[in-house]
Amino acid sequence: MKKNVLIIGAGGVAQVVAHKCAQNNDVLGDIHIASRTKSKCDDMIASVREKKSMKVEGVLEAHALDALDIEATKALISKTNSQIVINVGSPFINMSVLQACIDTGVAYMDTAIHEEPNKICETPPWYANYEWKRREICAEKGITAILGIGFDPGVVNAYARLVQDEYFDKITDIDIIDINAGSHGRWFSTNFDPEINFREFTGRVYSWQKGEWQVNKMFEVGMEYDLPVVGKQKAYMTGHDEVHSLARNIEGADVRFWMGFGDHYINVFNVLNNLGLLSEQPVKTAEGLEVIPLKVVKAVLPDPSSLAPDYTGKTCIGDLVKGSKDGKDREIFIYNVADHKDAYNEVGSQGISYTAGVPPVAAAMLVATGEWDSKTMVNVEELDPRPFLTTMSKLGLTTWIRDEQGERQIF
Amino acid sequence: MKKNVLIIGAGGVAQVVAHKCAQNNDVLGDIHIASRTKSKCDDMIASVREKKSMKVEGVLEAHALDALDIEATKALISKTNSQIVINVGSPFINMSVLQACIDTGVAYMDTAIHEEPNKICETPPWYANYEWKRREICAEKGITAILGIGFDPGVVNAYARLVQDEYFDKITDIDIIDINAGSHGRWFSTNFDPEINFREFTGRVYSWQKGEWQVNKMFEVGMEYDLPVVGKQKAYMTGHDEVHSLARNIEGADVRFWMGFGDHYINVFNVLNNLGLLSEQPVKTAEGLEVIPLKVVKAVLPDPSSLAPDYTGKTCIGDLVKGSKDGKDREIFIYNVADHKDAYNEVGSQGISYTAGVPPVAAAMLVATGEWDSKTMVNVEELDPRPFLTTMSKLGLTTWIRDEQGERQIF
Repeated sequence: MKKNVLIIGAGGVAQVVAHKCAQNNDVLGDIHIASRTKSKCDDMIASVREKKSMKVEGVLEAHALDALDIEATKALISKTNSQIVINVGSPFINMSVLQACIDTGVAYMDTAIHEEPNKICETPPWYANYEWKRREICAEKGITAILGIGFDPGVVNAYARLVQDEYFDKITDIDIIDINAGSHGRWFSTNFDPEINFREFTGRVYSWQKGEWQVNKMFEVGMEYDLPVVGKQKAYMTGHDEVHSLARNIEGADVRFWMGFGDHYINVFNVLNNLGLLSEQPVKTAEGLEVIPLKVVKAVLPDPSSLAPDYTGKTCIGDLVKGSKDGKDREIFIYNVADHKDAYNEVGSQGISYTAGVPPVAAAMLVATGEWDSKTMVNVEELDPRPFLTTMSKLGLTTWIRDEQGERQIF
Repeated sequence: MKKNVLIIGAGGVAQVVAHKCAQNNDVLGDIHIASRTKSKCDDMIASVREKKSMKVEGVLEAHALDALDIEATKALISKTNSQIVINVGSPFINMSVLQACIDTGVAYMDTAIHEEPNKICETPPWYANYEWKRREICAEKGITAILGIGFDPGVVNAYARLVQDEYFDKITDIDIIDINAGSHGRWFSTNFDPEINFREFTGRVYSWQKGEWQVNKMFEVGMEYDLPVVGKQKAYMTGHDEVHSLARNIEGADVRFWMGFGDHYINVFNVLNNLGLLSEQPVKTAEGLEVIPLKVVKAVLPDPSSLAPDYTGKTCIGDLVKGSKDGKDREIFIYNVADHKDAYNEVGSQGISYTAGVPPVAAAMLVATGEWDSKTMVNVEELDPRPFLTTMSKLGLTTWIRDEQGERQIF
C-alpha cells in the first residue's frame, strides 16, 4: 500500500532522501518536505524536478515548519495525510517529531540520536536518555518507530544482525569502521553540520567492552586498518549512537566504533577544542555579547552541502566482526563502498549524505510494503536485515563481505 | 617641573605605567588612571599600594572613562589638572584621546598606531592615515605629541636614531627583531590583547625596501637569527608601526620588522586564520546572531594579564643595523634583554608589558623636565635618544650593543 511521506530537514541528507523518495514514489505516494527555511525545500524540489527523479506523476510539496513545535508538526502530518515521517533534521528535534508521530499515529524514523543543545555526551546507553523512554507508548499504540536508520547508525546495525544470524554462532567483537577517503578540496570542512560533527568528538568516547562501558578521550585510541578499495587508513575510537543499542541487542559482544581522521582534521580539531571554540556553553565577549563558540565556528566553516560538486573519492563503512562458527574462529568485514562523484551526479549530494539518506528511504519502502512495519519502537538490528539490504542494493548501496574466501558482493 | 599624569587603559601595560609613574612621582606629580571599567583601575592602584611603589606621598586616583568620548576625556583632563596623557588603552581610541589633548593643550603619548575596528592593514605609511593628519595643528598649538613610545615602536626608533648619529655615516638596513623567548605555560595564549595581537598578522606585511613599499604575506618570509642571551630564534617578517615612520625618517635605509614565532603559535594562528575566525568582519550564526569571530576568539583565550605570575624566560628586542662608517662596512645589533619573572616581581606584569610600559614613563619624565617637550607631534626617532636611553636605564631597561668588539652595555 502506498504511504505518503513527510521529510523533515533540508540539508545534504534530506536532499538524498527527497530524490530517493521521488525515484520510488510508485511505492511511497505523496512526498512532502518541511524545514524552518521553506526556500531550502523549494531548492530540493527544483533539484528533483531538474534531474527528473519522480518515477510516476505525483505530489511533491515544500512546507515551512518549526519541528520543535509539536502541534505544528501534527497539523502538517494531518494536512498532508502523511503516514511516514522521515526525520533528517537536526538531532535536537527528534523527541518533538517523535511525539507528533505518536499523537497522530504515523510511522517515525530518524538517522541520529536525540540531543539537547546544551548537553554533550550523556550517560550511556544514550538511547535510554530519550528515545527508549517512548518505547512502551509506541508498543501500546502500535506506532512504528525505527531509530537510527542512516548508514551508521542504521546499515551497520543491519550488518551486525545479518552476520549474527548467518555467519556466526557466537560474536565476540563488533568494530564499526567509518572511513571517508574522499577529498572536498577545501582547506577544512566538516562533511555534515559542523555543530553536530564536532559535538560527536568533544565528549567522552564510550565503548562497550567486557560487559561494561569503557571511557576514553577522543583521539586517545587509534588503529590502522587495511580496508577494501580505500586501503590503509588511520581510524580513532569514537563515541557513536549504534554502540549504545548494539551493546544491548548483540549479547556477549564487545562493540566499538572507529572513525577515520587525517592528521589535518585532527590538528584543526585539537586547536579549536583546546582553545574552547568547540564549546556548546556560552561565553561573553568584551563587549558583553553572549555567544556559543561552536555556533560561530559553524558560521565560518563551509556549508557542507556546498562541497558536493567538487567531492571526489570513496567512502568505506562496515563492521569488522569476530567470533566463531561451527567451533572455528572467524573474522568477517561486511561493508559498503560509495563514490562521492557518483552520488553527486545522481542526486546532487556527496557520498556521506548519500550513504545516510538512502537507508531511511529503503526503510520507508519496507514500512509501506509492511515488511518493516514493526508497530513498535525498534533499533535497526531488531529488524530482519535481508529485505532491507536487498532494497538498499536496488537503491544504489550494495553490501560486500571480506572473509576467508576474499571479497564479494552479497547484496 | 612636576607634571600630573593621566594614564588611560587598564591592561598589563597600564599596570606597568602606573607602577613606574608611582616610582617617579617626585618628577611626575599626581597620577590618575582611567578606563571603561573603573574596578580594573582600582586593582592597579591596590597593586601599586601593595608594592609600595609611590616614591613620595601624592595623589593616585582611579576614574571611569569612555575614552572615545572626547568631551568626557577633556573634562577628566581638566578636573585632574593633568599635563601629560599616557594613552595605553586600545589603539581604537588614539584619535579621540589625541583630540582631547589638542583641545585642552596637554601632552599626548601612545604606544601603538591608531586603528579603526573594522579596518585592517591600511595604505602605508600607516601614520599618514590618522596621526600625522594632526601634525600641523599640534605644531600650531604647541602640543607635545609623542607617537609610538612603547618598546617597539618606541625604543627601537630611538636605537635607530642613536646609531645613525653615532655609529654610522650611512645606514643601508634596519631590521627590527622582536623575540619573546619566554614561556607562559598555557596551551596557547597571546601576550597582549588577542584582538590587537592577531590583527597585526592577518593583513599584508609591509616592509620598506629599495625606496618603496614591499608587500608580503604573514609567515611568507622567515629568518633564523642568533641573538644575545636568547640564542638561535626563528623570526618572520611582520607588519609593524615603526617601519612606517623610520622609512620616512632614516633616509636611504631599508626597514623591516621581524617577530619571533614558535611552530605552535604559527599552527594555531594558521588554523584560526584559514577558518576565518580571526576576521574583524561580522558573520551571522544559523540562529541569526551577528558576531565578529575575532571577538569570540578573544573571549575564549586566556586574559594576557593572567599569564604574568607563571611567566619565565627572557625577551630580546633590538635593531640589527647595517651600513658604513669611515668608509668601512659595519653591522651592529643594539638591543635590550628583559626578564619576565623580574618584571612580575617588581610591578606584577610580565616582561612584554614591562618593555612596553617603561618607555612612556621615561618619556613623560623627559616631557616634565623639558628635554622632550617637543611642542609638536613627533615619532621617537625625531627626538634626542641619549636622555631617553639614560632614563630608561635608570627605570630598569638597559641598552646593549653587539658589534665587532663583542657585547657590552652602553646605557
